[in-house]
Amino acid sequence: MRTVAVTRIGSLRDPDATARGQIGVVDFPDQPLGPEDVRIRVAYSAICGSDPHLAEGFFGTDVPIGLGHELSGVVEALGEKAHRNGLQVGDRVAGNFLRFCGTCTPCRAGTQQFCEHIQDYNRPGMAETVTWHESQVYRLPDDVSLLHGCLLEPTSVAVRIADKTDIQVGDRVAICGGGPIGQLALQVMRMHGATSLTLIEPIAERREMALRHGADEVIDPISEDQYRRADEITRGQGFDVVIDASGSPRAVRGLLEIAAKGATVIYGAMYPHDFEMPLNLSDFLYLKELTLTGVFVSPYAFPRALQILPYLDLDELTQSVFDLEDATEAFDMHISGRYPKVVIRCNDITDSGSTS
Amino acid sequence: MRTVAVTRIGSLRDPDATARGQIGVVDFPDQPLGPEDVRIRVAYSAICGSDPHLAEGFFGTDVPIGLGHELSGVVEALGEKAHRNGLQVGDRVAGNFLRFCGTCTPCRAGTQQFCEHIQDYNRPGMAETVTWHESQVYRLPDDVSLLHGCLLEPTSVAVRIADKTDIQVGDRVAICGGGPIGQLALQVMRMHGATSLTLIEPIAERREMALRHGADEVIDPISEDQYRRADEITRGQGFDVVIDASGSPRAVRGLLEIAAKGATVIYGAMYPHDFEMPLNLSDFLYLKELTLTGVFVSPYAFPRALQILPYLDLDELTQSVFDLEDATEAFDMHISGRYPKVVIRCNDITDSGSTS
Amino acid sequence: MRTVAVTRIGSLRDPDATARGQIGVVDFPDQPLGPEDVRIRVAYSAICGSDPHLAEGFFGTDVPIGLGHELSGVVEALGEKAHRNGLQVGDRVAGNFLRFCGTCTPCRAGTQQFCEHIQDYNRPGMAETVTWHESQVYRLPDDVSLLHGCLLEPTSVAVRIADKTDIQVGDRVAICGGGPIGQLALQVMRMHGATSLTLIEPIAERREMALRHGADEVIDPISEDQYRRADEITRGQGFDVVIDASGSPRAVRGLLEIAAKGATVIYGAMYPHDFEMPLNLSDFLYLKELTLTGVFVSPYAFPRALQILPYLDLDELTQSVFDLEDATEAFDMHISGRYPKVVIRCNDITDSGSTS
Amino acid sequence: MRTVAVTRIGSLRDPDATARGQIGVVDFPDQPLGPEDVRIRVAYSAICGSDPHLAEGFFGTDVPIGLGHELSGVVEALGEKAHRNGLQVGDRVAGNFLRFCGTCTPCRAGTQQFCEHIQDYNRPGMAETVTWHESQVYRLPDDVSLLHGCLLEPTSVAVRIADKTDIQVGDRVAICGGGPIGQLALQVMRMHGATSLTLIEPIAERREMALRHGADEVIDPISEDQYRRADEITRGQGFDVVIDASGSPRAVRGLLEIAAKGATVIYGAMYPHDFEMPLNLSDFLYLKELTLTGVFVSPYAFPRALQILPYLDLDELTQSVFDLEDATEAFDMHISGRYPKVVIRCNDITDSGSTS
Repeated sequence: MRTVAVTRIGSLRDPDATARGQIGVVDFPDQPLGPEDVRIRVAYSAICGSDPHLAEGFFGTDVPIGLGHELSGVVEALGEKAHRNGLQVGDRVAGNFLRFCGTCTPCRAGTQQFCEHIQDYNRPGMAETVTWHESQVYRLPDDVSLLHGCLLEPTSVAVRIADKTDIQVGDRVAICGGGPIGQLALQVMRMHGATSLTLIEPIAERREMALRHGADEVIDPISEDQYRRADEITRGQGFDVVIDASGSPRAVRGLLEIAAKGATVIYGAMYPHDFEMPLNLSDFLYLKELTLTGVFVSPYAFPRALQILPYLDLDELTQSVFDLEDATEAFDMHISGRYPKVVIRCNDITDSGSTS
Repeated sequence: MRTVAVTRIGSLRDPDATARGQIGVVDFPDQPLGPEDVRIRVAYSAICGSDPHLAEGFFGTDVPIGLGHELSGVVEALGEKAHRNGLQVGDRVAGNFLRFCGTCTPCRAGTQQFCEHIQDYNRPGMAETVTWHESQVYRLPDDVSLLHGCLLEPTSVAVRIADKTDIQVGDRVAICGGGPIGQLALQVMRMHGATSLTLIEPIAERREMALRHGADEVIDPISEDQYRRADEITRGQGFDVVIDASGSPRAVRGLLEIAAKGATVIYGAMYPHDFEMPLNLSDFLYLKELTLTGVFVSPYAFPRALQILPYLDLDELTQSVFDLEDATEAFDMHISGRYPKVVIRCNDITDSGSTS
Repeated sequence: MRTVAVTRIGSLRDPDATARGQIGVVDFPDQPLGPEDVRIRVAYSAICGSDPHLAEGFFGTDVPIGLGHELSGVVEALGEKAHRNGLQVGDRVAGNFLRFCGTCTPCRAGTQQFCEHIQDYNRPGMAETVTWHESQVYRLPDDVSLLHGCLLEPTSVAVRIADKTDIQVGDRVAICGGGPIGQLALQVMRMHGATSLTLIEPIAERREMALRHGADEVIDPISEDQYRRADEITRGQGFDVVIDASGSPRAVRGLLEIAAKGATVIYGAMYPHDFEMPLNLSDFLYLKELTLTGVFVSPYAFPRALQILPYLDLDELTQSVFDLEDATEAFDMHISGRYPKVVIRCNDITDSGSTS
Repeated sequence: MRTVAVTRIGSLRDPDATARGQIGVVDFPDQPLGPEDVRIRVAYSAICGSDPHLAEGFFGTDVPIGLGHELSGVVEALGEKAHRNGLQVGDRVAGNFLRFCGTCTPCRAGTQQFCEHIQDYNRPGMAETVTWHESQVYRLPDDVSLLHGCLLEPTSVAVRIADKTDIQVGDRVAICGGGPIGQLALQVMRMHGATSLTLIEPIAERREMALRHGADEVIDPISEDQYRRADEITRGQGFDVVIDASGSPRAVRGLLEIAAKGATVIYGAMYPHDFEMPLNLSDFLYLKELTLTGVFVSPYAFPRALQILPYLDLDELTQSVFDLEDATEAFDMHISGRYPKVVIRCNDITDSGSTS
């Protein structure tokens, strides 16, 4: 089965081509169909901002490493006992690349994000088909296209970020980083009560995209004094909620200063393994009583992510589409940063749902 | 000082004119200006859905009962110590008709809605001027007109209702009752993460207004089967959040049926003193684990109400305006139900803020 | 396999012996051991306050209805794939009689209490053995005896009740009903921050038991004026948390009066199918802003129930023990009300854990 | 009026006596009694762990700096309008050294800890009398002695720490630092649902005191491997709640490692102005999803602190008592660390309440 994979470990941005990480299309064995499993013919599979981290060996270095966990498709086959959520062959679906075992202590305590068997069904989905446990598969609403539907998973991340903000309607919100998670978080926070909604992002195209999708203000942290701007926007109060979606050590340093007293700051990205942010306990936890937290993975958020998909404007996040065999070019485009999101068309499937 | 007041106790809807409650304009003595007080020349003062309840004697029967607690205006005078929130003569303001003492046990426990001295500064604001403690007064943002600003108080109620829903983004929401609180709650829930947002309301004009302001669906509980409709809209799940803004004993009976398992149901209106809703504990609290709660008054919600005012569309809620001396006609118009909100112009003040 | 069962539908309290419900010991077929299942040789299985409701046909009327869902025992056999929580043959265990499917919408939304397949593994545990899915089985700590361990499930109910109270340390707490859930809730709330902890219970022995286990005060609702007593105990403030563990229509009527403004009232028992409690919306949801909610089943609470078992004093709740073949007498004793809890010894197993 | 004060800025621990901070008793003018004020004849005033920070100039360097904010006493005089909480001359009281204005934005948003006028009534209470606004004064329960009552304020800090933990009953809890706040937090968390309650503290006497007051385990971070011990105590899960009450840069570094996945870590002390804790975002906020927060001051916690005072064992925290004129010796004793708490007897008042 044709599958997009990391074929050499290394930074995809390495200027030295001999050391650079490589992406290719390789043949993987078919994934077995267990009695409670669902085989999905993949329509679209999007490149995630974490995929380059996998190329760098964040989660392991044995190549080839199959990629792809943001996908949509059509049910092709069902295991004999895969009947608990009423799926039928032909259903348009998307899903969660993680299966939660239900048996380990975190699963039983309601914290599936820490499931001890979380990787058991994590199979590469940038492929012709993917086979998941039925608990991972969600039927798409009729008014969501397969192309938009492949963003269910990153939308679930934005929903979980929103959940952890504990926002109250009217709170002032700033988001740092205008990549796909930042743009989705922006739309989700726009519909979840944010005021003075501000994106901090150095790339002009991404700031403009944010303004088209509900940002009240944007800040260029390179050319502008973000502290002064934050002060103006919030009339000296600071932001009640600050979300980092940049993953950038340089960018995160200033976020505690623009947070309001009592604010919540969410670290919603991946950070370099060895990066330690200096945290002044007296200024930020004692005097300002900030709350800092983060997001790893997003169980429990999928049903609501599915519910809000029709309310989001996903056209600009799905405008750059490549065929499976052109995956190398797709990743080059992703690295170029021209589009916040690049999508792989894994099969050419006629979509009975809303066209995008 | 000219003040709108209940001049005879009785239902404003009583067909018997001799028993009907009466509204008039009477002369009240000037309210004293204490050292921490602020005198406001009132621009607009809106009729509240609870005003007819006052006419019926809900909170007392000694006439005249001065009315008006949804107001905006301009600071006319400041007590010598009224300096804690930087107010200046000439500032455009709105506010909270209740002052919280800060000293009683509820105030010190963070539950000012139960303040034991809550009535100390509740002065009629449908008048030429009103004098409040500085803690009750909020400066309006430049982009909010005095006409829209008089809706700060009912907006704070809608914000507090939203707070008590504990909504998570994507939750399905139904609102029963399309009067002013229902319409404001609809707009607030629209911007606070609601999906499948549905208004249940028998008056066609109010349903149409809701559709113009963000409702996904409307239900006419008279001509439609609301249970079947709710089932269709939520694909059999029920609504995660149900808000009653009707205050109607007949309307509230069916709301528990359309609530999803685990849903929150907010009783956000005033109800007849002696009305007892039959509550099946087995069906609704045991098997469905619903949470039922209500809203009395709304401390803590004003700063965020002020923050969201510019995001609301308040034109239709402020289109029916009467002069102070025409208060009787204004109340007749209110009772007619033609407009969800009727506003009294207490003084003719040139508004330096955003025009509406 | 010998199993305690309802053999005739009817009230166990019916004075007419010919109409009275009957409990007997019958032979049931062995439960199959699936690949992820665990067979437990049952040591102790306690009678639950809901068992008489089952005898009355609350959940169905086809006899025999096998009973027993509060149990402890020793692992006798493991399915070939039952390895996710490290269980071994011989382990001392207790568990949850419900299996949550992990696949339906409620399971995936984090509300397993509403799992659509909740009954799939609900098998009678007042039997020689019970076979459960591994996700239902918890290893007992070394310092908890098998006799005490059979109370894991009702303890999980008390934990979930505690969770839903949202208690803050120092809150005043009243519990209505001194049966096993009431007594366990009392101990759990004692260790969870309650002050002025009060049990309302007409049976003197149960009030005395509560005083031995941490109640500050007890009220006999028959001979005392519970409103006056509540007022004295709380210095006129009312209770911040009120828990009903009585299930009694007569008892629940007065609980809203003794609740403080802003209090949470938990309905933590089963109620007659057709009982409708009259709820004055104006007094209790509008003016007092009470929050009413309930508890059906208790997923997510088991890990913490296991953690607190060693901190509870369970001797008095496990002092009345009958052999399996004497189940009829055991239920007679349960109905007599002499002991708040009656336990069936299903097998005579030497306990390597802490003796009780 | 005789008042204990910092008379020279400097570290009280400075080995160089000429540079060392100094504490003395000086004459301060009487504090004016405003119309809503209450004059209290002080019985006891305890030395706070933050007092040496004041000697070092944390909040200012103009000497003399009057000290004392943990106090109890008897009402001596009432302003003419100080009637809102029913105080009478002769009442036994304690209180909050901070007055919240009720008018600034934080006060009106329900975050009085950030009140912009918080210092207006912060008057030295290690003195013959102190005069506070009535909103700062709480009547002591009859069963709390004046000696114990002077710990109301630090108890409120422990209560607020407990509030911010969001503990669920059964959570595993570790506390770092066995000074007065650590010891009070230990007792409060003991009564608020903690299991595996562990104190980390290098001083043996403080560990032993903790074991006498409800700690399940203690760890000496100097002689023991705290990571291995934490692992044993929590069976590899880590602590669900970690509280720092040490304020020590060295001690706080290891706390994130012993926290469970998803845990809450509270920084509940003061930290050096310039201390920056290195925070690995990937390990602790991304992979472990920890929540970090802190506590500045504790509005809203006083009513519940008052409620739990009778449930705490305060004898060991009030065993070292000095007369006002011996304040220098009292501070020497405080610095010696022999007792976790040292108390100044400001007046010799016969206590009508429970003797200690």
